[in-house]
Amino acid sequence: MKDFTYYNPTRIEFGMGKEKNIGKYIAEYGVSKVLIVYGSERIKKSGLFDTIAKSLSDNGINFEQLGGVQSNPLLSKVYEGIQLAKTKDLEAVLAVGGGSVLDSSKAIAAGAAYEGDVWDFFTYKAVPDRALKIFDIMTLAATGSEMNNYAVVTKDETKQKLSLAGAATYPTVSVINPELQTSVTKEYLVYSAADIFAHSLDMYLSATYLPEFIAGHVENILKTVMRTTEILLVDENNLEARGEFAWAATQALNFTTFCGVENNRFDTHFIEHTLSAEYNIAHGAGLSIIVPAWMKWQKNNLPERFEQFAKNIFNIEGADAGIEALKQWYSKIGTPVTLKEGNIPEEDIPALVEKLSAVASMWGAESLYTKEMITTVLENAK
Amino acid sequence: MKDFTYYNPTRIEFGMGKEKNIGKYIAEYGVSKVLIVYGSERIKKSGLFDTIAKSLSDNGINFEQLGGVQSNPLLSKVYEGIQLAKTKDLEAVLAVGGGSVLDSSKAIAAGAAYEGDVWDFFTYKAVPDRALKIFDIMTLAATGSEMNNYAVVTKDETKQKLSLAGAATYPTVSVINPELQTSVTKEYLVYSAADIFAHSLDMYLSATYLPEFIAGHVENILKTVMRTTEILLVDENNLEARGEFAWAATQALNFTTFCGVENNRFDTHFIEHTLSAEYNIAHGAGLSIIVPAWMKWQKNNLPERFEQFAKNIFNIEGADAGIEALKQWYSKIGTPVTLKEGNIPEEDIPALVEKLSAVASMWGAESLYTKEMITTVLENAK
Repeated sequence: MKDFTYYNPTRIEFGMGKEKNIGKYIAEYGVSKVLIVYGSERIKKSGLFDTIAKSLSDNGINFEQLGGVQSNPLLSKVYEGIQLAKTKDLEAVLAVGGGSVLDSSKAIAAGAAYEGDVWDFFTYKAVPDRALKIFDIMTLAATGSEMNNYAVVTKDETKQKLSLAGAATYPTVSVINPELQTSVTKEYLVYSAADIFAHSLDMYLSATYLPEFIAGHVENILKTVMRTTEILLVDENNLEARGEFAWAATQALNFTTFCGVENNRFDTHFIEHTLSAEYNIAHGAGLSIIVPAWMKWQKNNLPERFEQFAKNIFNIEGADAGIEALKQWYSKIGTPVTLKEGNIPEEDIPALVEKLSAVASMWGAESLYTKEMITTVLENAK
Repeated sequence: MKDFTYYNPTRIEFGMGKEKNIGKYIAEYGVSKVLIVYGSERIKKSGLFDTIAKSLSDNGINFEQLGGVQSNPLLSKVYEGIQLAKTKDLEAVLAVGGGSVLDSSKAIAAGAAYEGDVWDFFTYKAVPDRALKIFDIMTLAATGSEMNNYAVVTKDETKQKLSLAGAATYPTVSVINPELQTSVTKEYLVYSAADIFAHSLDMYLSATYLPEFIAGHVENILKTVMRTTEILLVDENNLEARGEFAWAATQALNFTTFCGVENNRFDTHFIEHTLSAEYNIAHGAGLSIIVPAWMKWQKNNLPERFEQFAKNIFNIEGADAGIEALKQWYSKIGTPVTLKEGNIPEEDIPALVEKLSAVASMWGAESLYTKEMITTVLENAK
């Protein structure tokens, strides 16, 4: 294994009804004023909001609220939350929703503890080493945001979709109740599966050194996601499958898959972020389009790894067969595998290449993301 | 998955030469006076002690030292450390060694922050919710102590081998440098493999509910330990194998294998602790004797799980065949599988049953560990 640092202080409270204890969990950290951040008003209709409000109030915690976070969450909403947190002198943020709500909450938490513009964290002008405490109740499993310190937000005007990460942006407590996730639509379930696959495959298929133990860990995540997605598509209330799906999602991006790995890249996420920012398609749908297209570009760089993937995940021989099997599985569960299926005009490819090159430049990553590379991947997605 | 809480704040610094940074790591937490705890004087001859002393001194950290911790570490040595820490007003403990040294250090750290007798923590009269900060540099991989809050210590007079665990007894930073572990003898390497197997199998073969994802995680640990042990027996300097072995050891007892599991037991450790306390045999050697003997007793309680073990670990059919394959593997690598091979007199079985029953009573676990159960397991180990 190569050198690594592993550190992940997030406490996970996993299980049925654990959202009812959220007030107790928060009170344990001496917090008495929180900002509840959420997406649609669905959590009010379902009664979840009331459950949370009661738990907070039972534990002497006051709250403000900020709804309306959308997928591919926007910086303008983050500014709104920061303003509210600063004005009302709030001590913590409680995200109730999926990755978009949690990512917005992390940005609000960091921005509220910072004098400057929160966007500085996304453009690496500053690092969020201070933040309000972050708590969350996950109603969707996909991004792994509940057990890492990353937050991805899109700037409204420029459509730049960038991320922040710092020592202070790990959630303090994340509540994962599989039952709350049974209301996820089949559409979002399969997009989530594609998201988890991409988190895993970006690393697994790019690391120039991958310890067998870590390969086994990632393969276990992938096989769990495949198995449980197929169960949930026919039995959405299967809580055992729902739970394993959620925990696999968490594991895929809690840094355990990166331990001892060398030179892993994050190509498909790099490309997809601009896609979903430009076209507002679901992040997971963008990923199921980009991942097989990227694999075709990448396969000759690590042929043995691609054969291992084909063998260990689909029990077939050969890199190309593995890519094809993944595409077929994506199609089978119902997530798009071409730009056309994602309603992205193929004639936009040149413009997209320019946009992606600009982001690559900002990151100083032009040598990784050449125009030729980006063009090849997007052309492969036709 | 069943309900669970997962929380593990230990920071892992894994890699070559990382012990040279120990002063920097400790200074980051504002600590300026530590107690170095170690076992034999070997670390002085090898130069490791000097490396550590220099790193501490370069970072303005003063230290006291306490050597002579032995395997199956004794409470008397812990008292010595507590006395030293209290007298010299030390702020942290730095363990340099294997699980015995680290466990002693955890007990010293907890005892030094407590008015009463540290043994209270082992007999559940008190919980260690305060402790000096704990740091460690692992020269042996086996117990997983570097990423959990448990410490096992033996009381000199009564030979009770018991454990403490509390919120404050997680290491703050654990350094794992595979290179420092190349000096482990082949004997201790295979005992360590048996220890990791037992940590995994106690749960895997007893949990009445085991999510497939967690089963896959444990199977990945077991297969990694088998593969890397066999490499290291012929090539002790293989750092990749050494590193994966070490990381598998950490994973086997950092609570990731317990997530969502129901009703797991810790039978073989329960029985072995008394064995090694009474006969001072290596903990791992005791475990390789007890594990197959316990499996013969346990197999009818979970026949499908035992078949899964045989299939997924040894690629053979049938519970009995799986147990036999494990025994053969233990014999092949050179760790004992019978009481006789461990130099434990078979005629001591009745006396051992009495001692184990007494410990079970203290824990209120008589119904789990009946005399009949204990006798059967020990008889199976003949």
